Amino acid sequence: MQTEIKVSEKVKLKNPVLVEGLPGIGNVGRVAAGYLVSELKMKKFAELYSPHFLPLVILHDSSVAQLLKCEFYYYKSKTRDIVILTGDTQSISPEGHYEVCEKILDFAEKLGVKEIITLGGFAEGKEIKEPRIIGAVNDKPLLKKYGGHDIDFGKEHPVGTIVGASGLLLGMGRLKGMDGLCLMGETYGVPVMTDPKAADQLLHVLTKILGVKVDLSKLEKIIKEMEEKIQQTEKIHKKILEELPKQQKGEDVRYIG
Amino acid sequence: MQTEIKVSEKVKLKNPVLVEGLPGIGNVGRVAAGYLVSELKMKKFAELYSPHFLPLVILHDSSVAQLLKCEFYYYKSKTRDIVILTGDTQSISPEGHYEVCEKILDFAEKLGVKEIITLGGFAEGKEIKEPRIIGAVNDKPLLKKYGGHDIDFGKEHPVGTIVGASGLLLGMGRLKGMDGLCLMGETYGVPVMTDPKAADQLLHVLTKILGVKVDLSKLEKIIKEMEEKIQQTEKIHKKILEELPKQQKGEDVRYIG
Amino acid sequence: MQTEIKVSEKVKLKNPVLVEGLPGIGNVGRVAAGYLVSELKMKKFAELYSPHFLPLVILHDSSVAQLLKCEFYYYKSKTRDIVILTGDTQSISPEGHYEVCEKILDFAEKLGVKEIITLGGFAEGKEIKEPRIIGAVNDKPLLKKYGGHDIDFGKEHPVGTIVGASGLLLGMGRLKGMDGLCLMGETYGVPVMTDPKAADQLLHVLTKILGVKVDLSKLEKIIKEMEEKIQQTEKIHKKILEELPKQQKGEDVRYIG
Amino acid sequence: MQTEIKVSEKVKLKNPVLVEGLPGIGNVGRVAAGYLVSELKMKKFAELYSPHFLPLVILHDSSVAQLLKCEFYYYKSKTRDIVILTGDTQSISPEGHYEVCEKILDFAEKLGVKEIITLGGFAEGKEIKEPRIIGAVNDKPLLKKYGGHDIDFGKEHPVGTIVGASGLLLGMGRLKGMDGLCLMGETYGVPVMTDPKAADQLLHVLTKILGVKVDLSKLEKIIKEMEEKIQQTEKIHKKILEELPKQQKGEDVRYIG
Repeated sequence: MQTEIKVSEKVKLKNPVLVEGLPGIGNVGRVAAGYLVSELKMKKFAELYSPHFLPLVILHDSSVAQLLKCEFYYYKSKTRDIVILTGDTQSISPEGHYEVCEKILDFAEKLGVKEIITLGGFAEGKEIKEPRIIGAVNDKPLLKKYGGHDIDFGKEHPVGTIVGASGLLLGMGRLKGMDGLCLMGETYGVPVMTDPKAADQLLHVLTKILGVKVDLSKLEKIIKEMEEKIQQTEKIHKKILEELPKQQKGEDVRYIG
Repeated sequence: MQTEIKVSEKVKLKNPVLVEGLPGIGNVGRVAAGYLVSELKMKKFAELYSPHFLPLVILHDSSVAQLLKCEFYYYKSKTRDIVILTGDTQSISPEGHYEVCEKILDFAEKLGVKEIITLGGFAEGKEIKEPRIIGAVNDKPLLKKYGGHDIDFGKEHPVGTIVGASGLLLGMGRLKGMDGLCLMGETYGVPVMTDPKAADQLLHVLTKILGVKVDLSKLEKIIKEMEEKIQQTEKIHKKILEELPKQQKGEDVRYIG
Repeated sequence: MQTEIKVSEKVKLKNPVLVEGLPGIGNVGRVAAGYLVSELKMKKFAELYSPHFLPLVILHDSSVAQLLKCEFYYYKSKTRDIVILTGDTQSISPEGHYEVCEKILDFAEKLGVKEIITLGGFAEGKEIKEPRIIGAVNDKPLLKKYGGHDIDFGKEHPVGTIVGASGLLLGMGRLKGMDGLCLMGETYGVPVMTDPKAADQLLHVLTKILGVKVDLSKLEKIIKEMEEKIQQTEKIHKKILEELPKQQKGEDVRYIG
Repeated sequence: MQTEIKVSEKVKLKNPVLVEGLPGIGNVGRVAAGYLVSELKMKKFAELYSPHFLPLVILHDSSVAQLLKCEFYYYKSKTRDIVILTGDTQSISPEGHYEVCEKILDFAEKLGVKEIITLGGFAEGKEIKEPRIIGAVNDKPLLKKYGGHDIDFGKEHPVGTIVGASGLLLGMGRLKGMDGLCLMGETYGVPVMTDPKAADQLLHVLTKILGVKVDLSKLEKIIKEMEEKIQQTEKIHKKILEELPKQQKGEDVRYIG
């Protein structure tokens, strides 16, 4: 069995941008992506399954079993379309990360994606009152493109490395000629605690880049509605973190996408 | 080498239901499946071998070496036929779980299977006097179908996840359009101790669903006869549990199928 | 890269028996096989390389680097020919064990092998004055065939499982219709200490089965000559043992082939 | 996804020698290779990516994300051409080491490479005032060929094994008929501390073998300029060392290439 994307609706998209928000530190990316899906009433059109996810099913509503999966949603606008990738989990093996990201990029390529934005949290290891949005790109000229936004590309943030899908999609996307931006909301970084403040800040920046208007006042409410899913995500994510080699949780690598 | 199913007898089955009972917590599923095989005098028609099992042979009768394997048995009845999947072990790697379950489902599909029932124990972490049977399905409408039986689908049992074959067969079966039910007998959950009481309760529910009559009075006697195999299974299973990532044995994930 | 057998000489063999002696507990199998190769002046005709061995080279004569490998030797006699498989190491991953053994058996099949004898040590965990040879077969009728030899197939030796090539070659060989016998010399079981006494006892039984005459008086001398290779083997083997999941070194599984 | 080499410039080379210097103990090989690339103004013509590297991107200049990769550079001279292989990292799995080295050798073969020189540090576990260069070859006759250089092939250096690319390229290269030499600079061996003294000594020997003139006086300066890259390499390398099985860092195996 290989990583597989099951398409439920064939869609034609206009210059789509791919936005990835999978579980990670502070669930910042996952929550921000989920909020966009909900507020923009985006439609699911594909699911991704992988043998590199934990070998288990989640029970929804206490008794309905579902495989771990990632999901693709689309949104059509007048200017350009948006594809959001979110889901329950990331790969649990290093090789699996590469395989899953390659499948995502192959699929994105077919959809016509030429720009990727990945979302995540950046664990500062201390309480953050006013979370900044820290950025990384996959090509130097892009620093100018995104320079006008409230993103910190500065040297005072020695992120160093970006682990997992948020990083690999940028690096591997470059090899396919796709532009990539990673947005990381500063957060405490205790893995299993959702940080709505960082997600809120992330959404402020992201919606401007995407050119969509989203009422952010409902974020905390939606997070509460998403609670069951989030808790399961957090349990799964906690497991993955525990399975990751120790050093990936160490001092030097403070970010996981 | 890949996971492989060796068919010893070609069988034509009438609307068969697949019942899986592999080693797991309290050996509940394994023992219940084994009892059915014995009482219904079911016939073995296929064996499954996998490089994802522990790399060892078991010595039967002290000196006859056999690869670890799973086995398929069939039973023909007037109404519908039954296929039972039981065996020595489950996969020892996460990816292996997916591969083994995919092979099982491909095989089941060819046999005409459209319904799967997986059996397991649910570790409560304390002594259980009157074990309930906790259930999960792989599609919400199935809750009604199985609602008439003595199965607890209630919210007060936060199973959360089902690890291993009992879970994956449900989740992956759904993708193939197969209905799935998981039955879990409440048990203490010390991994290496067979729990006949939970197996007995499980068989009461299962035989009603399957529409077969089985004398359950011999269960404890049969378990004693199965003792050598069970002990080996328990040793192997203990090893697998020790190899599983710690968190899969932790508080949050109290079930392994 | 896959496990690969490089043949240096094409040989035609008469009803050959395959004898496996790879590093393991007490190096009993490895030393016995090496002694036969040396005394019978057997000729190497193939080498096996695998990505499932440790990723390193051994330096022979202090400065000549060689990949880890297994080696096939042949011996032609009037009655039946002998193929010996020995080498530096075994696989370091569970899946690798299956892959390597499958390649060996495919190769053996092409050579016309219908009988396999695997050699190993059986760790008793205490000093053994008069090591017995404990046996296992891969088909019950074979107990009679080998019954006349000084092999203990009795119930008082709860070997339980045979881990690694010595076990898998038997189990997987059965699926190819090959008869298999495993001979285990009782030894203390400290992994990194060669036990010539158990190897000597093993050779007494083995040479009778093979119908060859070998002067066993030089065993200790030859072991000294093999010392450099043995030490390297022992280092490598120690590493593999350390990499094995803990339970494979535990009480219940006292044998590794 | 598989290990892949992306060629950016097709080059025709004259009897090229492949010199490998990847991260390892004391970064000796990596630094020596990088210095040659810089001093000889070598040109990059290919990059290697692999799913067996850590699943992360490195941020260059604080915010430009790049996949982990190895790089091939070439240098044309009057007599024979040189290809240097250097990069961010080595494989993190045993099987990955074999796969990556096979891809490298397939590529080298197409370039016409018949001789390989691999560079590394040899961890002595104590301070080294005058680092010697310890050598290993992949064929005994080569001892004469390289005998005239200041290389210690003597028995008093029980290197025993060479782990990783520096070892496997020699061993696997032999199977392709390529001559191989490994040069190891004696160093303390604390993994995450670059040792310019050992690199300097290594370059003295290497440049003589390659027949190129290189001003070594700038080595320390260049190492300072390479500092950002080196620090990242060291972080990555530290992670890989932590992921390696314990015994590969133990007493018996004091070298990692």
